[in-house]
Amino acid sequence: MIGSNLFIFAMTDHSRVLLALFIALLAAKLMAEAFERIRQPAVVGEILAGIIIGPAVLGWVQPTEVLEALAEIGVIFLLFTVGLETRPGDIFRVGPTALITAVLGVIVPFIAGWGLLSLWPGYSWIEATFLGAAMVATSVGITARVLSAMGLISSEASQVILAAAVIDDVIGLLVLAVASSLASGQVNYFHIALTAALAIAFALLTITLGSRVVKRVKQPVRDLKIDHSLLIFALILCFGLAAVASLIGIAGIIGAFLAGVALSESAEGTRLHQQSESLAEFLTPFFLITIGMKLDLKVFLSAQVVLLSAAVIALAIVSKFGGCALGAMRMGKRRAIQVGVGMIPRGEVGIVVAQIGLALTGNTALYAVAVAMAVVTTLAAPPFIKMAFAKEV
Amino acid sequence: MIGSNLFIFAMTDHSRVLLALFIALLAAKLMAEAFERIRQPAVVGEILAGIIIGPAVLGWVQPTEVLEALAEIGVIFLLFTVGLETRPGDIFRVGPTALITAVLGVIVPFIAGWGLLSLWPGYSWIEATFLGAAMVATSVGITARVLSAMGLISSEASQVILAAAVIDDVIGLLVLAVASSLASGQVNYFHIALTAALAIAFALLTITLGSRVVKRVKQPVRDLKIDHSLLIFALILCFGLAAVASLIGIAGIIGAFLAGVALSESAEGTRLHQQSESLAEFLTPFFLITIGMKLDLKVFLSAQVVLLSAAVIALAIVSKFGGCALGAMRMGKRRAIQVGVGMIPRGEVGIVVAQIGLALTGNTALYAVAVAMAVVTTLAAPPFIKMAFAKEV
Repeated sequence: MIGSNLFIFAMTDHSRVLLALFIALLAAKLMAEAFERIRQPAVVGEILAGIIIGPAVLGWVQPTEVLEALAEIGVIFLLFTVGLETRPGDIFRVGPTALITAVLGVIVPFIAGWGLLSLWPGYSWIEATFLGAAMVATSVGITARVLSAMGLISSEASQVILAAAVIDDVIGLLVLAVASSLASGQVNYFHIALTAALAIAFALLTITLGSRVVKRVKQPVRDLKIDHSLLIFALILCFGLAAVASLIGIAGIIGAFLAGVALSESAEGTRLHQQSESLAEFLTPFFLITIGMKLDLKVFLSAQVVLLSAAVIALAIVSKFGGCALGAMRMGKRRAIQVGVGMIPRGEVGIVVAQIGLALTGNTALYAVAVAMAVVTTLAAPPFIKMAFAKEV
Repeated sequence: MIGSNLFIFAMTDHSRVLLALFIALLAAKLMAEAFERIRQPAVVGEILAGIIIGPAVLGWVQPTEVLEALAEIGVIFLLFTVGLETRPGDIFRVGPTALITAVLGVIVPFIAGWGLLSLWPGYSWIEATFLGAAMVATSVGITARVLSAMGLISSEASQVILAAAVIDDVIGLLVLAVASSLASGQVNYFHIALTAALAIAFALLTITLGSRVVKRVKQPVRDLKIDHSLLIFALILCFGLAAVASLIGIAGIIGAFLAGVALSESAEGTRLHQQSESLAEFLTPFFLITIGMKLDLKVFLSAQVVLLSAAVIALAIVSKFGGCALGAMRMGKRRAIQVGVGMIPRGEVGIVVAQIGLALTGNTALYAVAVAMAVVTTLAAPPFIKMAFAKEV
């Protein structure tokens, strides 16, 4: 076996990884180019590329641990780059609107998902609770990518979306914690309260103090002898806060976004933004490809599942859009619509909730429905986002 | 188990990856800074950081599949960035000198390693052949990193080192193929000849035609509608050629280096170099940390192994330096010394050979010796490289 590695066209681990990266990058960018040419969002093309090269269709690239890790690092750099364009003051200014948007964007989809599955024959209330929790999720990465590509990441609606996504993630964590405790039979209110307190304290502290701390250490960091010391410092801060967020239980991307926000004012006039953009540009395709790879088309051979999926997807789009647009109504109708469509994609966050639900309920059909909901809302939203923001460009 | 992921400070896969990246980056760069301050090469500090945080000492970070993949991608971007600074013409100019350097840099260390183990009691001639093959390896990544940091990657000696490393890798592949065939009892001369022909054809074709092809497609690539299309094209070329190299059996970094060379002339006046440098800056620490992590200090509790390791390490340094300096003698004494020290590090290439040897011979003590040789030559070379090139800065 080993001997054969030494000869032509034999697959070592290294060749396998390199070949997977090559195919993933090439497929993602060919599809992105094709979608740009028909004036559709590139992200949709890249997610479809994942469906095509992944296990669902061609099976050329498998969702390995390495690809998942690159996807995770990719969305981290994506949100970090977006954070670099967001000042702490922006978040505070839109804070109240974002809070209402996030709260309604949690309540309405949860009730919709829970209610649908409670009425649908054959599902338990615990399963209904999990579908509700999955419908609460928001994947701000997709929206951020579309708005960045349009040059609109600093618009007021974008800022509400970003801030609401952070709050949404904290509330979503709590919904999921309650759902999981219910499923496992015992609710530890102390733990849930502690998680909530930690998550809120982490987000607030980073936004309020982060920027000041960074400003104070900027010069000492620049005086370090290592090359590119500011970039290195930024990377360490980004992964440090992402790790803390992940340990508390909220998404790592929230930590990365907050690290970007903390650095945003100090990064002006430096090359940091371009450098982080290069990293995001290399790694984001793996994030998009991996989302596409999760979709298992085989499940849709059952008419029952197709029917339920269609209902869930329709409700997921309408309830998130409705709840968030309602929450942002004070900004005027056009902006409320922009915020509403921007919150639709469930992306990787919805998939993570679906995985937890699968582990606790063992219902694979429901898992497939929840993943389909996450992938389809993510695919469907970008064209709406482009339309809703078209007048701003 | 899953439920516990939802609560504070619980380790999900994501948190584990993020925490490992954070610790690895922080440790590597703290050590790099410490070494810069005592005027020692930063790479040595980063490799030592890997020994300290890895299984050998603290055990905070384990050499997982994900970390290995990031290390591989890191050294790929490192060599790609170096390739971007190397023109095809440079390689042809130094070609003859590089060829002699590479050939003597293979023959002398092989005979030294093979001879030592043939005379040493208790080792078979197959084991001796493998130690010889491991001593043939050259890890140009380390030298490239040191010379880049000194701003000397375009010096004549650097170019000889780079070209000789490419040739060395092709010859090393053949030595390893012969050694492996001998160990498994049957030598397939046709396969070995085919591998040799493919490797040589690949390298020559990429150097001669690559640059011309890239120049021709540059404008069409820039006209693509996707963002950062030149960077995307460069990344796809880099991973494509790395995958091809790896499939043929030579190191993926050779493909990445050649991709950089093919792009070097077209990349002028673009941001490509800076972008690829940002990628290398993020990922190179994982390459260095991972090399350090391979060292297993426990093996050195045996006096026998310590004695053999010391002899092997001393011979590895002297034979590679001697062979390569002799080969580069026509450039004058000072440059010959520069080339000699630049070829000393065995790095990840030596470790890969040691792993193949372990799989075929089953001798764990010899494996530990070969890995120690790879790590120690990699640690020892940078200070000599800095000294040999000190007058050029």
